[in-house]
Amino acid sequence: MNNWFKILYIFTFLCFTFSKAQDKLMIGEKRTVFSKVLSEDREIWIHLPKTYNDTTINPAKYPVIYLLDGENNFEYFAGLTDFIARTPYADIPECIVVGIKNTERTRDLTPTKSQKKSPVNSAVTLFTDSGGSEHFVKFIQEELKPFISKNYRTQGYSVLVGHSFGGLFAINVLLTHPEYFNSYVANDPSLWWDNEIMISRTENYLEKNKKFPANKSLYVSQADNEEQQKNWNSDMTQSIEKFKGIVEKNGTLNYKHTFFEGETHGTVSYQGNYEALKFIFKGFRTNIKQFAKNPELLEEEYKKFSDRMGEKFIPSETYLNVILKFMKSNDFKESETYFINLKNRLYPKTK
Amino acid sequence: MNNWFKILYIFTFLCFTFSKAQDKLMIGEKRTVFSKVLSEDREIWIHLPKTYNDTTINPAKYPVIYLLDGENNFEYFAGLTDFIARTPYADIPECIVVGIKNTERTRDLTPTKSQKKSPVNSAVTLFTDSGGSEHFVKFIQEELKPFISKNYRTQGYSVLVGHSFGGLFAINVLLTHPEYFNSYVANDPSLWWDNEIMISRTENYLEKNKKFPANKSLYVSQADNEEQQKNWNSDMTQSIEKFKGIVEKNGTLNYKHTFFEGETHGTVSYQGNYEALKFIFKGFRTNIKQFAKNPELLEEEYKKFSDRMGEKFIPSETYLNVILKFMKSNDFKESETYFINLKNRLYPKTK
Repeated sequence: MNNWFKILYIFTFLCFTFSKAQDKLMIGEKRTVFSKVLSEDREIWIHLPKTYNDTTINPAKYPVIYLLDGENNFEYFAGLTDFIARTPYADIPECIVVGIKNTERTRDLTPTKSQKKSPVNSAVTLFTDSGGSEHFVKFIQEELKPFISKNYRTQGYSVLVGHSFGGLFAINVLLTHPEYFNSYVANDPSLWWDNEIMISRTENYLEKNKKFPANKSLYVSQADNEEQQKNWNSDMTQSIEKFKGIVEKNGTLNYKHTFFEGETHGTVSYQGNYEALKFIFKGFRTNIKQFAKNPELLEEEYKKFSDRMGEKFIPSETYLNVILKFMKSNDFKESETYFINLKNRLYPKTK
Repeated sequence: MNNWFKILYIFTFLCFTFSKAQDKLMIGEKRTVFSKVLSEDREIWIHLPKTYNDTTINPAKYPVIYLLDGENNFEYFAGLTDFIARTPYADIPECIVVGIKNTERTRDLTPTKSQKKSPVNSAVTLFTDSGGSEHFVKFIQEELKPFISKNYRTQGYSVLVGHSFGGLFAINVLLTHPEYFNSYVANDPSLWWDNEIMISRTENYLEKNKKFPANKSLYVSQADNEEQQKNWNSDMTQSIEKFKGIVEKNGTLNYKHTFFEGETHGTVSYQGNYEALKFIFKGFRTNIKQFAKNPELLEEEYKKFSDRMGEKFIPSETYLNVILKFMKSNDFKESETYFINLKNRLYPKTK
């Protein structure tokens, strides 16, 4: 009888836990990936878009955004992707967000070993563990990406997003392994690192290759680091502007740079990431009303967009359903028939 | 035996569910509040700040932000409050976010009954259920706020945030019940509603009262509604600018207005809410380095900030711990002693 009581107790406890869990608002899930390259477990935060588990549509595939410093940026960033991907006025496609939590941040994000004395306390040497970015990008490319593709429904397009050292890392990956991602975001990147080594790398890259690779995008945000002019980070602004000059002079990269007046190094990512997503996915937004008279335009616009992106994008089933509803309720019969056929073609197993 | 097997099965299932729940990233919890005023259940989404359940500090109290259209804005907004409240460079205090999910949006958010024919289809009458905002604000003030105060540790300061009809609602509450909230945020508010009734109400309010109440703030964002100039919402821009003119001419309200170039009605809240929080909590950010030589400055700045806000704010225990760590590691002994005493005074039951 005592045992029965115990079981009942555990059962009640778990039921309670279970019912409580139903009332939680989830923004993602934690997964652990063991990295052979880094010889450690890495915690990964994954956000799936709103329609990912929608059983009324066919299972879709989604672009993936890899977000560095996951623990700082994941929540608002995941919320942002959902917010601006809402049908019918979506500015970007729905995306999977993969936040990477730091273990040894300086080691992973810096491209070279470059120590220096602390300006506050000269007894302290900073950045003793720097220079491990080549290993870290190998982990992302050879271990994390295959894990994500295996466990989630991913489309080919991917974006790398970083801030500060993470921005330095993103630009370094663009220069050393441009094929790894389609787009790169660097918020107030630490281009001052190691006597502006990224400036020399950019110059060397362009001397050798003349052009940046096709279909790639880079977005750089720059904070209004007035305060920082007064401290050891004073070369932050200078190096970002030097980089801007080189890239804009070359003119072959789909590049956008925004200076955010009044924003500090610590906060610039909130706005920077929004501008970055609008820039990267420019041309994704289509106007539903235009399709009433000119239904072919939808596929034409997706074709144009896909060409620019270097990856095939098709209208989502959710969007096609909204278009169909619009045509039906406004009695645009020809267009309705057109979109029924298009939906059957793109999503043959219509639910 | 069969029964034992069943129990084992359920037990295993629940254990699995439980362990999975541990891996979820939560951004909030859902609660249901039955409203006698509205005669219906209302779903409320609550986000608690990072330190809310931190057992290493004393239980703290937090300002509350009431967010309309919870289902659209909750995720990025909750993430934003955490992002810009990070110690030591916090721009705002940590806040509880209360998202209110819609049931009948037009009914709840509009101040008057004002029907009109759909411009797309004249057989359809729009806004048939409008005019219920007085009931809805009564629900918030008399039912929701007491529920939140009873179940969560709230400080006295509260903010109301709305978009479109929600912005119209926020401005209406400021004019009809200014005492309900300390600050109001109206993103691209629908001030065209009912022949600009909010413009007349503002004029009447100022004729009667001359001034807006002290210590209140209002932030208004305005989208670049170029597209909307062409449709039935063309008076959106005009009415917002009329309102701006009246408030700025009067000059007694702590008011900020931002026009967001290139932003649409549907997306302007992402940036608007960020600017709103920076505006409302201006003066909250303090510079830790200044306290090394001048430790009294911390309380002076909080006093000044509290006076402006009309509500008492004190440095959080988390922030005091960071200041103490800074003083200790940089060997500012006098300041360290000062802040140990301050902490003992503000948080006597030091953990």
